[in-house]
Amino acid sequence: MMDLAQQLAATQALIDDRISSFLPEPAGPAARLLAAMRHSIHGGKRVRGFITIKAAEMFGLATVTVLPAAIAMEFMHAASLIHDDMPCIDASPMRRGQASCHTEFDEHTALLAGDALIIRAFELLASLRTSGLNAEAVLRVIGEFAEATGAMGLIGGEAADIEAENEEPEAGLLNFIHTNKTAKLIVAAGRSGAILAGVEQTALRTLTEYAHHLGLLFQITDDILDATASEAELGKPVGADKALQKMTYPALLGVEGSRQRAQEVAGMAIAAAEALPAYNDLWIELVNLLLQRDK
Amino acid sequence: MMDLAQQLAATQALIDDRISSFLPEPAGPAARLLAAMRHSIHGGKRVRGFITIKAAEMFGLATVTVLPAAIAMEFMHAASLIHDDMPCIDASPMRRGQASCHTEFDEHTALLAGDALIIRAFELLASLRTSGLNAEAVLRVIGEFAEATGAMGLIGGEAADIEAENEEPEAGLLNFIHTNKTAKLIVAAGRSGAILAGVEQTALRTLTEYAHHLGLLFQITDDILDATASEAELGKPVGADKALQKMTYPALLGVEGSRQRAQEVAGMAIAAAEALPAYNDLWIELVNLLLQRDK
Repeated sequence: MMDLAQQLAATQALIDDRISSFLPEPAGPAARLLAAMRHSIHGGKRVRGFITIKAAEMFGLATVTVLPAAIAMEFMHAASLIHDDMPCIDASPMRRGQASCHTEFDEHTALLAGDALIIRAFELLASLRTSGLNAEAVLRVIGEFAEATGAMGLIGGEAADIEAENEEPEAGLLNFIHTNKTAKLIVAAGRSGAILAGVEQTALRTLTEYAHHLGLLFQITDDILDATASEAELGKPVGADKALQKMTYPALLGVEGSRQRAQEVAGMAIAAAEALPAYNDLWIELVNLLLQRDK
Repeated sequence: MMDLAQQLAATQALIDDRISSFLPEPAGPAARLLAAMRHSIHGGKRVRGFITIKAAEMFGLATVTVLPAAIAMEFMHAASLIHDDMPCIDASPMRRGQASCHTEFDEHTALLAGDALIIRAFELLASLRTSGLNAEAVLRVIGEFAEATGAMGLIGGEAADIEAENEEPEAGLLNFIHTNKTAKLIVAAGRSGAILAGVEQTALRTLTEYAHHLGLLFQITDDILDATASEAELGKPVGADKALQKMTYPALLGVEGSRQRAQEVAGMAIAAAEALPAYNDLWIELVNLLLQRDK
């Protein structure tokens, strides 16, 4: 079996190779919008898509079948980044080593490209019904995906994140922001793959716990990198959190305290990974990779 | 049986009474976002929700069962208005007789409120699976709704509309914009109700044709009103199309030519309404109401 780095690279290559085929060709009166959508799905680590694919595979569902769901996770993630980068939120000129969407195109195109990618994510999930998958399972995935990404999930976390700028860091609120802004989509990525594969309840609960901690770890290490890495390493401006007075773990606990917190959360993720019915080493290695990541 | 005006008023009252219950209470760290969502679902004629409810009812499905789908149409419509009103698109300070979302709140909240309403629309459609409706039919509705509202539908129409500003009016492009920006969601509203009710193929095709022409009529009369009505009548600024050099029927054909075009499209809608298996008078009256509307 390939090691984790090889599996991640293989999945990333697969997604990069196929992702454009899930969008219409840029032509016709909306060509600029379609080009902006393509621009913004380039790059990225594809961690969410990887989790969907591996969660499906561990319960017996083939990559080719679950691929539209993995792409849906990536589309939603890309949409959230487009809107996040806009002048009225983070005003970020760069993303994934290239110009952010509104910088490359313009604000109205970026606004609409984000909307269209959100909608396309749902369209891809609905399309799973043509793959012989159980219709009830597909509907459950759509409902959970919406819940995880809407006002009580990803978008609510974004909103709380912005409202918290310039506020005194506070652990409860910080946990709310990280859970909603980052962890819930990662949980949805894992659950979607597993539910489509027909997972049973106990394993699904363990996977949920694993993905929740992995998501928190992802955001803590993201915050640490924003405070410590270089722009060349990240492909986006660094130090943005501090400049915007974002509520982050480094702001609450300092960089060293955040690294310690990351270790604790990683420990909880590993404990859940050890309780999973399969792929234990893969999920544990993924935790360690995030813990050591430098981009 | 109530006449159309009474039925419209009754449905509007029902939707106005129930729509807030389909959103979370504004509380917690994302309270401002949730308040903005509530703000922007107020008012409006609820024509899309009405069409979903009546299309379901004509094929035997109860209003209470289809209501979440009708609300989903209204949420998507409200989301498109929020984003449309933003400074980077139409920069409109007023909507439905009250401050537009970014004016009442701020730009980042309006951006995220639109996103969250789009996602919530899909969540409501997915929730229909708990109402004893056929899972395949619900999935088909979600897929069609996404197709009608995404880059090849509503959002694509919005993008083309903006790109066409300052361009010489041209009938083919104008038809593309109206079809995508307005007609497709109205078609989706009708088809959703009918599909959930288990409509057969021929009637669905006729309903689709009806709703397509009704949608075009809706946009033509909207353009005429923007050129001729007062702000007090519309609850939003008038003359905005001309100020933004929008590609509209009045710009292409003049106001009188547009009225004639509206008559022609109304004739096509009425022909389809006459071919429907039920509720013919209701659907015909709806055409006449739109033709004569002054707000």
